[in-house]
Amino acid sequence: MKAAVQSTYGPHVLSDVGTFGGLFAGSFLKTMDKPVLVASMDGVGTKTKVAARLNRWDTIGQDLVNHCINDILVQGAEPLFFLDYVASSQLDPAQIAAIVGGMALACRAAGCALLGGETAEMPGVYEPNEVDVVGTIIGVVDQDHLIDGRQIQAGDIILNLPSTGLHTNGFSLARRVLADLDWTAWREDLGYSIGDALLAVHESYLTPIRQLRAVGVEIRGLAHITGGGVIDNLPRILPEGLGATIQLGTWSIPPIFTLIQGLADIATHELYRVFNMGLGMLVIIPPHQRSLVPHLNQVGAIVTAHSGVQLEGPK
Amino acid sequence: MKAAVQSTYGPHVLSDVGTFGGLFAGSFLKTMDKPVLVASMDGVGTKTKVAARLNRWDTIGQDLVNHCINDILVQGAEPLFFLDYVASSQLDPAQIAAIVGGMALACRAAGCALLGGETAEMPGVYEPNEVDVVGTIIGVVDQDHLIDGRQIQAGDIILNLPSTGLHTNGFSLARRVLADLDWTAWREDLGYSIGDALLAVHESYLTPIRQLRAVGVEIRGLAHITGGGVIDNLPRILPEGLGATIQLGTWSIPPIFTLIQGLADIATHELYRVFNMGLGMLVIIPPHQRSLVPHLNQVGAIVTAHSGVQLEGPK
Repeated sequence: MKAAVQSTYGPHVLSDVGTFGGLFAGSFLKTMDKPVLVASMDGVGTKTKVAARLNRWDTIGQDLVNHCINDILVQGAEPLFFLDYVASSQLDPAQIAAIVGGMALACRAAGCALLGGETAEMPGVYEPNEVDVVGTIIGVVDQDHLIDGRQIQAGDIILNLPSTGLHTNGFSLARRVLADLDWTAWREDLGYSIGDALLAVHESYLTPIRQLRAVGVEIRGLAHITGGGVIDNLPRILPEGLGATIQLGTWSIPPIFTLIQGLADIATHELYRVFNMGLGMLVIIPPHQRSLVPHLNQVGAIVTAHSGVQLEGPK
Repeated sequence: MKAAVQSTYGPHVLSDVGTFGGLFAGSFLKTMDKPVLVASMDGVGTKTKVAARLNRWDTIGQDLVNHCINDILVQGAEPLFFLDYVASSQLDPAQIAAIVGGMALACRAAGCALLGGETAEMPGVYEPNEVDVVGTIIGVVDQDHLIDGRQIQAGDIILNLPSTGLHTNGFSLARRVLADLDWTAWREDLGYSIGDALLAVHESYLTPIRQLRAVGVEIRGLAHITGGGVIDNLPRILPEGLGATIQLGTWSIPPIFTLIQGLADIATHELYRVFNMGLGMLVIIPPHQRSLVPHLNQVGAIVTAHSGVQLEGPK
């Protein structure tokens, strides 16, 4: 595990695994015009209960790191370092090694140092065999490159970076709806098992967003579709007086959502509040730049007619 | 709660409560020679179970913030900002407001911004009515002022900044030993109730350490006495070939420890591994500077004769 953590260390890491606070050299910040540190802390929620049912612990850490990367990426920040906290009623070294190994894998892919971590054994606080996994990410953006949605205008178009599945939201409902099915058998409708579909790793959008910037796309807003779905997350970045329409049928919905929708009696609007439905990260750009990104699906547009998000088209 | 959080904001905080990642302006880092970011993540452990038994939630947040402040202070870092995560089986708004209010209080006192936070409701992961409280602190130190213990020499003296009680360690044992006693009645031996003694707020040593620096004390090492006690924590900063002697009887032991010791059949050495026993933060300075700090107790010295920590004197 120590080797996995050390494999995430770049030249900025001054401390060693297991010492006190993690040390991250910040002299490079002096080369930036107005460096702004961007910080976010989050957990993976009850996706841990899926990992527990399947006894597969190598993906949860990747989920958490990628979730956190996306959460600061929406403000234009690049990740610098990550810290983790893993707690349960009784710590299992193999389980922790798998979880932290997943974190190290995702950190390494993002060029982000896994700078520190803590474990806690708390019998009587956690239920037997349950675990919580929490992480904090620190990134940086030059203030002039902060993305905050203020430049969004009516007529802007909404592109989708697809999700791989539930990511880290909607697991309470999904587990309830799917509880009595076989989670390990291959299914034709999914292309894999329910377990594999549920544990599909939360996608990091760091590379695609870097690529958009590299080709000169003016990103006016980014919405990471997490708890609350597109219904709650997209309005958070819209300026006063603007709303968005999402055109149903313009992107591929991962089949796990179709399966859940078929089994549960949930209205479409509610479905789009609980799940991301295949919308991983929404990218808002001016319409004249559409030709720069032919590979991305346009899934909607910014409008003045109403506030909030309207779902349009085939239900 | 929003007002409490905002009260911790200094001029560097660019984001608003409840937006995405917290934004912390870092241009001031450019005035430092070699800025090093120092990060630490921790929880308060089962001190939450004491808070639950007494239904008092205003101190736990202070404990966590001060614990984290001390954890990076040992490397010489000043706190910049803090993020929190509060999770339980069922979130109680009043409980969370009290916990976060405590965090804001401690952050404000330290000039540290409470930059972000997350709550999670996870039934089936947490036991009913149980809560976990986790925090991450980010601080900064100029690399030339990093404290890492390398300058420690034989003959250096060990001073104590007193603890207020258990701080955030040893609660599993303390709760077991004290379980059947009345926690709310005033006790002559303690000067207050067992509940008050157990919930005594984890002391922040930021101000005393700033004062030592202000009068020109050369701090060669700092040891925050947490889980593992003086036995495990002090050796972490000692250079190869050096050990420490701690002279029992040279400082006041908070009476809650005396009560626990009287009820439990625990060897002295083990007692000093589970509890801080009144040793909050140990400060190692060269002997010729003793006169600069007449108000602090000398509790031990650095020696070459052995490695690790030896307890000497009356048991």
